[in-house]
Amino acid sequence: MKSQHSNIAPPHASIPAAKVKMRLTIAYDGTHYSGWQVQKGSTGVQDVVERALAGVIPGHHRLHSSSRTDTGVHALGMVAHVELPKDKLKVPPRKLRLALNAHLPGDIRIVTVSRARPGFHARFDATGKQYRYFVWNHPAMNPLLRTTAWHVPQALDLAAIRAAAAHFVGQHDFRSFAANRGYAFHDTVRTLTRCGVRRSGSLLTFIIEGDGFLYRMCRGMVGTLIQVGRGRFGADAIPEMFRHKDRRIAGMTAPAHGLVLWKVNYGR
Amino acid sequence: MKSQHSNIAPPHASIPAAKVKMRLTIAYDGTHYSGWQVQKGSTGVQDVVERALAGVIPGHHRLHSSSRTDTGVHALGMVAHVELPKDKLKVPPRKLRLALNAHLPGDIRIVTVSRARPGFHARFDATGKQYRYFVWNHPAMNPLLRTTAWHVPQALDLAAIRAAAAHFVGQHDFRSFAANRGYAFHDTVRTLTRCGVRRSGSLLTFIIEGDGFLYRMCRGMVGTLIQVGRGRFGADAIPEMFRHKDRRIAGMTAPAHGLVLWKVNYGR
Repeated sequence: MKSQHSNIAPPHASIPAAKVKMRLTIAYDGTHYSGWQVQKGSTGVQDVVERALAGVIPGHHRLHSSSRTDTGVHALGMVAHVELPKDKLKVPPRKLRLALNAHLPGDIRIVTVSRARPGFHARFDATGKQYRYFVWNHPAMNPLLRTTAWHVPQALDLAAIRAAAAHFVGQHDFRSFAANRGYAFHDTVRTLTRCGVRRSGSLLTFIIEGDGFLYRMCRGMVGTLIQVGRGRFGADAIPEMFRHKDRRIAGMTAPAHGLVLWKVNYGR
Repeated sequence: MKSQHSNIAPPHASIPAAKVKMRLTIAYDGTHYSGWQVQKGSTGVQDVVERALAGVIPGHHRLHSSSRTDTGVHALGMVAHVELPKDKLKVPPRKLRLALNAHLPGDIRIVTVSRARPGFHARFDATGKQYRYFVWNHPAMNPLLRTTAWHVPQALDLAAIRAAAAHFVGQHDFRSFAANRGYAFHDTVRTLTRCGVRRSGSLLTFIIEGDGFLYRMCRGMVGTLIQVGRGRFGADAIPEMFRHKDRRIAGMTAPAHGLVLWKVNYGR
């Protein structure tokens, strides 16, 4: 039946409407969301941005993101692509950004909108990502950072943290630092190009960059590094943790609200 | 009548209960408050901290602060003193801090508590203050800084801002930059020891330090400096604005939510 009538179908039924692919950089405060994706009983950032797209260009336009951030995790440089019907896209990218922001709540902002080449895929073309994790290291919490930094009141040995962080750089099996999601053998090997800590007064900023990240891997690394800083583990314990390939052997998982997806790299 | 019976009054009626003076450093997110003081229909930070004090040590204990921040302004280093009845103060200062924080909402934190000498006064003994003002200078708002930084989307000439800021340092009559509160002649002279801008990516931090500040003076200065950065005024317009002693001659008042009372200095 399907092929029988194909020759007599009108042209507009067989030729898909012309689409244009757009690339979006999205920033959000994850405090009030279930993460990028919808979860039962809570709203996902993806859902809110898709509704804003529908508000500007009628129809449902599915967003494909580079990453799926967890509940409470923030982003300043999330990248996503979307295909939009060419005939309905009558505004230049600059105006699309403003139009979308007018449809979005204040805790989600479209930072940039640009045309992408037809084959671009936000997830598969990503060559690397940078996460930042913020720690407020002072006996009293900082009320201005209560939703964007983990409050660690105890004194920390920053030299030990830095020595431990250096062990993360390079190619390793990160199974011991990620939540168990039933990863297959060798699926858990990633390469980090950067893992460092900056201190500015009481604020510590962990900067972690690599070609990919397992589920909750950044938070497992930062939780372990803070425990190194408190003397729970020595800096040299990290290589031993890698060898075990067992989540129970490494340190705690740092809370979600200190983590920010900082940027996603493409090309080179 | 009053003096007639004074000799037969029991000792506890004529000798005031022994008091101990405590000095508090207080941090708060000013977003949901009418400022330090109560205003009609809204809660003041002072009120909330006094209620926490009453929750820990029965009775009303009046807080005397170094400054009165305006609606929406934040603080990380507000200083206040309070006199507490010696007989009821059975906890050391370190435990008083924790006890007060247990009685406070997350957007107000007691950072330090220490004993003050009997003559100490948080306002009259203050010798200087530092304010910081945060500006997010990027076409798109940063959702993580939406309640703590002024979003200025336009390009800014940072060199011009720095040249203009230098004019504020020293002793000047700041009448042109402060809200009119009916200041008397010469009451509006203040000395600034620092007025500079740091840039870190899209974040500008204005650091303003001086022996005292008029009502809304910091915000008038920052608003004017941003207008210098946008080309509305030249950097050399600042000395001319000082000479006019007229609020209408200077630039706009920057919004409250970018301003933080950073610290208060005592002694030399």
